[in-house]
Amino acid sequence: MKRLRTNRRVGFADCDPAKIVYYPRFYEWFDRSTESLFHSVAIDWVAMMGEDGWGGVFMGMPLVATEARYVAPCRYGDEIVIESWIDEIKGRTFTVRHDIHNHGRVVVEGREVRVWAVKDEAHPAGMRAVAMPDRVIRLFQD
Amino acid sequence: MKRLRTNRRVGFADCDPAKIVYYPRFYEWFDRSTESLFHSVAIDWVAMMGEDGWGGVFMGMPLVATEARYVAPCRYGDEIVIESWIDEIKGRTFTVRHDIHNHGRVVVEGREVRVWAVKDEAHPAGMRAVAMPDRVIRLFQD
Amino acid sequence: MKRLRTNRRVGFADCDPAKIVYYPRFYEWFDRSTESLFHSVAIDWVAMMGEDGWGGVFMGMPLVATEARYVAPCRYGDEIVIESWIDEIKGRTFTVRHDIHNHGRVVVEGREVRVWAVKDEAHPAGMRAVAMPDRVIRLFQD
Amino acid sequence: MKRLRTNRRVGFADCDPAKIVYYPRFYEWFDRSTESLFHSVAIDWVAMMGEDGWGGVFMGMPLVATEARYVAPCRYGDEIVIESWIDEIKGRTFTVRHDIHNHGRVVVEGREVRVWAVKDEAHPAGMRAVAMPDRVIRLFQD
Repeated sequence: MKRLRTNRRVGFADCDPAKIVYYPRFYEWFDRSTESLFHSVAIDWVAMMGEDGWGGVFMGMPLVATEARYVAPCRYGDEIVIESWIDEIKGRTFTVRHDIHNHGRVVVEGREVRVWAVKDEAHPAGMRAVAMPDRVIRLFQD
Repeated sequence: MKRLRTNRRVGFADCDPAKIVYYPRFYEWFDRSTESLFHSVAIDWVAMMGEDGWGGVFMGMPLVATEARYVAPCRYGDEIVIESWIDEIKGRTFTVRHDIHNHGRVVVEGREVRVWAVKDEAHPAGMRAVAMPDRVIRLFQD
Repeated sequence: MKRLRTNRRVGFADCDPAKIVYYPRFYEWFDRSTESLFHSVAIDWVAMMGEDGWGGVFMGMPLVATEARYVAPCRYGDEIVIESWIDEIKGRTFTVRHDIHNHGRVVVEGREVRVWAVKDEAHPAGMRAVAMPDRVIRLFQD
Repeated sequence: MKRLRTNRRVGFADCDPAKIVYYPRFYEWFDRSTESLFHSVAIDWVAMMGEDGWGGVFMGMPLVATEARYVAPCRYGDEIVIESWIDEIKGRTFTVRHDIHNHGRVVVEGREVRVWAVKDEAHPAGMRAVAMPDRVIRLFQD
């Protein structure tokens, strides 16, 4: 599957008093990187929101679970790479994997389990999970 | 005018590597405190959004300008007080003042200049500024 | 083990354009709640940092892993409760559990796996994990 | 004076429920852009911190005041440019200006007033403001 790599210099404001990245920032970067990964294959959340033809009327990609494993810290000034890709598609959920590379190795390993959500026509204000449409999956295939 | 005082212990995560509050946090606290100040007089943004009778259909209180003056730092572990009040109402704008008290004195002095916005019936997607309704102003009078 | 409960009204600024809590916020609340949980038993990170007698010179409680499961969304205006407690102590790691209660049920279930870190005398700039000292564990026992 | 321009796509997570940028984010971008502006002329806060020869032992660039004027909103998906430069150097303070460009015009106008801080040898834990060293000013001259 297609991978997106983003370079980032760890800034002063990314760090806490221990001079290492404050951990919720990693999740902010995961979320942003997921948005960019889809955008990189012309899947634009802004344009699609409320649009029909995406297995239904597209409503977003809500989260089921997230997790991260911290192997080594990222420090102020470190030049890191965030690498993101869809790792697994299984029924109505899919997993976006995020590796943070620093000094030549993976120091944070993240996972976002999401669903593809469309409008639930039976409940006007609600939404339901469906399998990621094939036309979307194909965009990520190498 | 009515004043709202909120106590807060400066947390690890509020601080940057210099062990003082990372300055955009102050603006987060100002914004949240403005929401709480209105909520304290039963002006609930959630309930009002899109409701008629607020000088029109209520659309929020967008910002025109913000500023802060930093007199002394807030450090990790400090017990601060955020004091907020409407300081000035002038035409279609009003100013929310925010003082951060620490160790017995005001260490940050903030200002948010906002407008009271209602739906612009002439432009369905747009909004326009009107004077804050009298029924709202009265709620803040002592 | 002692539990800490914190009330919070989901604010405008906690939410994303889908009008639900932006998920990295949950981790910010977990982290802050862990700090408050320890502070509630008089374990003050600010005062302890660099202090001897905590199984060594105290250096913090770095994270090994974090995770969250999202059962239902938290919306703007919801009155939530964050409940936090030490769930498991196992060798040199311990798990802080965080439940977010909303409308009478647990809607987010979080875990932070941390270690108790002290100065590594063999490597002046480094630190090493040790078991949480008994005097600390006792503070959390009911 | 040298100007730094940074492109940014307004992300889902930058926006609040009104689908416009949550205003404290602008200050986060200002702060980060100031760090990058200095880094672009090889003034690296990480390396310099605690180093002598910068009008004294360098301690950072603390803020005296910040402000922003909001002319038009930035919406989710907008491709913005953050343009930053040192606008004024006056005694011991200097002003970093930040313009946010969107759809061909300046929509947010920001100012950070900072001082150049060095260690105060008379008070070991303290710092004092000095004029920005000439060798630094020269780096920003075109």
